[in-house]
Amino acid sequence: MEAPKLELDFTYALQAGKAVQQIMQGAAAEERQLADELQQAWRTLQSRQGAGNDFLGWIDLPGRTSAAELQAMQARAAELRAKSQVFVCIGIGGSYLGAKAIIEALKPAFSLGLSGGPEILYAGHQLSEDYMHELLAYLDGRDYSLCIISKSGTTTEPAIAFRLLRAHLEKKYGKEEARTRIVAITDARKGAMRQLADREGYTAYVVPDDVGGRFSVLTPVGLFPLAVAGIDIQALVQGAAAEAADVAEAGNDWKRNRCLQYACYRQWCYRHGLGVELLVNYDPRLIYMAEWWKQLYGESEGKEGKGLFPASVSFTTDLHSMGQYIQQGPRMLCETVLSLAQGHAVVEIPTDAENGDGMNFVAGRRMSYVNAKAEEATCTAHSAEGGVPVLRVVLPTLDEGVLGRLIYFFETACALSGYSMHVNPFDQPGVEAYKKQMFKLLGK
Amino acid sequence: MEAPKLELDFTYALQAGKAVQQIMQGAAAEERQLADELQQAWRTLQSRQGAGNDFLGWIDLPGRTSAAELQAMQARAAELRAKSQVFVCIGIGGSYLGAKAIIEALKPAFSLGLSGGPEILYAGHQLSEDYMHELLAYLDGRDYSLCIISKSGTTTEPAIAFRLLRAHLEKKYGKEEARTRIVAITDARKGAMRQLADREGYTAYVVPDDVGGRFSVLTPVGLFPLAVAGIDIQALVQGAAAEAADVAEAGNDWKRNRCLQYACYRQWCYRHGLGVELLVNYDPRLIYMAEWWKQLYGESEGKEGKGLFPASVSFTTDLHSMGQYIQQGPRMLCETVLSLAQGHAVVEIPTDAENGDGMNFVAGRRMSYVNAKAEEATCTAHSAEGGVPVLRVVLPTLDEGVLGRLIYFFETACALSGYSMHVNPFDQPGVEAYKKQMFKLLGK
Repeated sequence: MEAPKLELDFTYALQAGKAVQQIMQGAAAEERQLADELQQAWRTLQSRQGAGNDFLGWIDLPGRTSAAELQAMQARAAELRAKSQVFVCIGIGGSYLGAKAIIEALKPAFSLGLSGGPEILYAGHQLSEDYMHELLAYLDGRDYSLCIISKSGTTTEPAIAFRLLRAHLEKKYGKEEARTRIVAITDARKGAMRQLADREGYTAYVVPDDVGGRFSVLTPVGLFPLAVAGIDIQALVQGAAAEAADVAEAGNDWKRNRCLQYACYRQWCYRHGLGVELLVNYDPRLIYMAEWWKQLYGESEGKEGKGLFPASVSFTTDLHSMGQYIQQGPRMLCETVLSLAQGHAVVEIPTDAENGDGMNFVAGRRMSYVNAKAEEATCTAHSAEGGVPVLRVVLPTLDEGVLGRLIYFFETACALSGYSMHVNPFDQPGVEAYKKQMFKLLGK
Repeated sequence: MEAPKLELDFTYALQAGKAVQQIMQGAAAEERQLADELQQAWRTLQSRQGAGNDFLGWIDLPGRTSAAELQAMQARAAELRAKSQVFVCIGIGGSYLGAKAIIEALKPAFSLGLSGGPEILYAGHQLSEDYMHELLAYLDGRDYSLCIISKSGTTTEPAIAFRLLRAHLEKKYGKEEARTRIVAITDARKGAMRQLADREGYTAYVVPDDVGGRFSVLTPVGLFPLAVAGIDIQALVQGAAAEAADVAEAGNDWKRNRCLQYACYRQWCYRHGLGVELLVNYDPRLIYMAEWWKQLYGESEGKEGKGLFPASVSFTTDLHSMGQYIQQGPRMLCETVLSLAQGHAVVEIPTDAENGDGMNFVAGRRMSYVNAKAEEATCTAHSAEGGVPVLRVVLPTLDEGVLGRLIYFFETACALSGYSMHVNPFDQPGVEAYKKQMFKLLGK
């Protein structure tokens, strides 16, 4: 069954939405340049001749990942699931954010893992000494396996974590059994981790050369940990494939290409002086999707002094913290709402005979009904009253297929948005600056 | 033992830091107005005659909270600890962010609670139907107690959650036992929750009339859940009292008043066109302190079209996502780093005879040493190379006393910063907008 489509709702998008709609209907004169630059971005992406075109592998990933590859990963994942209470993902940035975002979106809130699978923990994504100490102590008492996700094998944070965890694992199980509990996701041929994996006989999956870290969730970087967690990676890839097919079929047609529309919306906001794009959710399961999205957009566009600052809020909770600023602070914000049309469970609000709290006006209603009305109310308050453009990206439900679509949608729109502002959306030259300083201080 | 002092480090604060230092040394002419406005803000705060002066109770909280009150809360908390595997805090915004921030800062990463205490869970802080469904199912199988934190008892999110959880608790234990497992933190005399608490005989603690939600963590709003969690609330209050004493003693002396200095730093940044202040940590335990801080500053300053947008990042992890933007995106950012001078555990990086990952240059070093160098390197890269002012707030360690100091420091600086930009730092008129729309849509 094909994953249901995402929908963009421009109801609350104010002038930004009107601009996109004018362009969809044939471009009013004042929006000509914006429309042209996005069409040019589309052609640049299609031609595969633009800046950073050695990193366009993500475009074809959903199609080029075979059922056999997925099944092989699932089979290996099943072996680890069978003997692990905990599975530790070692990686940083794009090497863990995608997997974590999807796991958090699909995992029950009060369960360590999904559907009887292992608890998924993370390491090598920061340098907290106390965190590592506590992780090692926690693993003392539990059966576990791990994967190391590093193309080079020499990135500081994951390399340190892997030294510590490999030593811990080998001490716990002996060298031979430890080998069966380590999976490396790394370069196909070269680099420290590839060499080690080959020598030690670790199962190894490939980080493709033509896919950058922040675009890599649909490679083994994301897929293998997700398979261990118990996520249906076939459905995830199929969802992305369905979105890819939609995008390809829509082509440069403004009316049908959601990625062009979203890229256009945010470029309109950026070019009209707004500095911050808020990715908004009304369900805490989507909080980590925003962390993944921040890397995707921040790292792709934030260069040469350009780019919308990507930030996030989780409503309704943050309406009681950031709501005041959004409503009445400087008018420098635009919102993109991840709107969840349907959840899984049913919880009705009970009637209270005394009605001391005055809530009987929603008694008998589902919580999701009240949440949907809170969302509608907030969209109106922020846009109509507050002057903040609000675009809604409607997710039909929260499952693998829809998340696959969402990933591909955001990736494509990001490439278009970046090209339209004349930056290379696939490099990250600024990330080296702190590393250089750090190696100098550490005497490397 | 008095909690060790916070320190401000202006090494990386660029022009913003130079301006503050000039002011500290007697104000160069070009900084006259900024200095004068902050001195005026100090006088306004001291006079207690400024805008919102019916909400200045937070100033005296550390001094006016008696040992007897704290002990009474601790005794009641001990009763609940003894019979609860889980403790549910129902509240939204300032009614839960402070407690959560402190619990996350002090709780071991892989433990459900602190030192054998109950797991602390949250409800009524959003409207996710699936979250509530899963919470109720989780509580089916566990002994639990709860507190409801709501001055009025009629705020939509906590009121709905309390209806559901109270019914669940009464069904599980019977009405009588349920009464002993519910604590209300609410108005002293009026409102729906006070009435209910009195009628049902719930233990009830008072949300003072003169303390707003975002300044309430040192009232029972924060203190009672913290006591249940196993936090030393006496040490927390003593830390805040030590900071209050320092501030009072420093008075309007630029050289000694850290709150004036921080308020001045961020006002310089704001007045020089920077739009976003990033609260930065290098340890994930501090992530929730940033959520509390966002409400404090966003809600206090974000009005009348004014205010720095408060955002947060957690390094080194986000150096691999937001690092690119911070290094090379639009120069609209300033950073405030929560710098942790010392953690608790020791983890040394092992030597590897093969050194395939090339990390032997840090073998034998502690992880915290590498983390500190990463922080130093990043401060240099972002400020000297990137032009982003970086102020470091150095926390001597992470314990109750230091966190008490930090809370009082941020609160005082926030009041000064808000007054200096001529807004009322203690109201939040914009928060009503979405509520009005919501009640209309829900047919209230």
